Amino acid sequence: MDFNQTLRQNNLRVEKLLENTTNGFAKNDVNDAVKYSLLDGGKRLRPCLVFETAKLFGVDDKNIEKIAVAIEMIHTYSLVHDDLPCMDDDDFRRGKPSCHKKFGEANAVLAGDALLNLACETLLDGEYSQSYFRAIKYIFDCSGICGIIGGQAVDICPDKQKDFETLDFLTENKTAKLIFACTVATAIYCGATTEQQENLAVFAENFGKAFQVADDLLDADIDQNLSYTNLLGVDGAKKQLNEYTQTAIDSIKRFKNADFFVELCKFNLTRNH
Amino acid sequence: MDFNQTLRQNNLRVEKLLENTTNGFAKNDVNDAVKYSLLDGGKRLRPCLVFETAKLFGVDDKNIEKIAVAIEMIHTYSLVHDDLPCMDDDDFRRGKPSCHKKFGEANAVLAGDALLNLACETLLDGEYSQSYFRAIKYIFDCSGICGIIGGQAVDICPDKQKDFETLDFLTENKTAKLIFACTVATAIYCGATTEQQENLAVFAENFGKAFQVADDLLDADIDQNLSYTNLLGVDGAKKQLNEYTQTAIDSIKRFKNADFFVELCKFNLTRNH
Repeated sequence: MDFNQTLRQNNLRVEKLLENTTNGFAKNDVNDAVKYSLLDGGKRLRPCLVFETAKLFGVDDKNIEKIAVAIEMIHTYSLVHDDLPCMDDDDFRRGKPSCHKKFGEANAVLAGDALLNLACETLLDGEYSQSYFRAIKYIFDCSGICGIIGGQAVDICPDKQKDFETLDFLTENKTAKLIFACTVATAIYCGATTEQQENLAVFAENFGKAFQVADDLLDADIDQNLSYTNLLGVDGAKKQLNEYTQTAIDSIKRFKNADFFVELCKFNLTRNH
Repeated sequence: MDFNQTLRQNNLRVEKLLENTTNGFAKNDVNDAVKYSLLDGGKRLRPCLVFETAKLFGVDDKNIEKIAVAIEMIHTYSLVHDDLPCMDDDDFRRGKPSCHKKFGEANAVLAGDALLNLACETLLDGEYSQSYFRAIKYIFDCSGICGIIGGQAVDICPDKQKDFETLDFLTENKTAKLIFACTVATAIYCGATTEQQENLAVFAENFGKAFQVADDLLDADIDQNLSYTNLLGVDGAKKQLNEYTQTAIDSIKRFKNADFFVELCKFNLTRNH
């Protein structure tokens, strides 16, 4: 199956899972806000990475589905809270009004809270094992104060340094940590060796950073606070993108049948054309 | 040991645990906001209920401590987000500036998120067992859209009904559900029978409601949107308080050595004098 077919198939799978999760919700604005944000037709890159990582180990079961869905919930909650007026104050998300523009701030705060809580409920539902327990611990380490929230905490500091070290820290935590969750946590559940986990961690870090550089290149015309294009210039950022991409590919090629990941890295390279 | 000694001892224990948890935090405003809100000298009623429920079953270990600390984190996060300008807009909490007044809204949103995430990290750290897994699932069911968040979702509706049924739903979810978490989740971990879990659930529901009625009686002079005193009058609310208290006591007395719980119910009765 080619790259686009795989993407589409994983996409259909996660849409169905997310719809099943939200189907039984009681009718109120917070739940509507959760559905609006969660079922908005995002790329579902993160669940896709979970399914494809599990394939590397020949594993596919309910727990993998739970990990995929829960990480998408965590990703969505972080976007809903990031968009709030007191944070990035974004009125639009993927071409539609952002959650607080559509449902009001109070409902958006609660919808974000509900999504993070729902990720816990989802992960804790049903079967478990020692490796599954360690995998879900890893996910919440990635989303917490040593991960996404830690990155956000530094990003909202008005007096943060505008240097490469700070940008690297922000990208590592705000973007790459959830990619770590997709690949390394899934690998932990699948019984990966320490070496396999490390290869996936190197992939996650470098693909996560390559993804952010590509984003910055797409937005190079927009005045940004702290970005790869601002710090390195467009050519410097392209060079950095190629370096991160090559390291990610070298690392993932240690697995057999990792074509999807290689294609994903190449696809990311073409996003700025 | 008498009631006040037990309270004090549990209090010291949980303060120490919370300080240990927050000691290694990196230095930034979000982490300072987490510490400020978590180490603010609250009553620690919920951790106390966890420790005392565990005592009913002769259990005391690291997992009990994690349950106690995590529930206090969930309680604290819900207060931090409730106080936000877009929610209840409270400038003070326990006589001090509320989290967003002290650290700004963005840091308060992230501090609340961090506290909920920290509850997950805490609960998922270390030892586990089937009963522990079920217990922590129960906790996040209580804090989610079928618990605290579900209660909040209805409470912030501008057109909610102002009747006893709605008030009962709000109290059950916003106040009692976390008491369910303290008692029933702890009991699940301790290997309680279904009957024992049900008795603790009846206690949680009725003590939780009695606690809310006592709160409303304390604030009876303040103009409130929807409260027991508004709906039932002061005398009617006192009658309701006595009924909930008696049901809670009858239920908890099915356990041997439940003196602490009985004293707690009696203490709550005296709060409005």
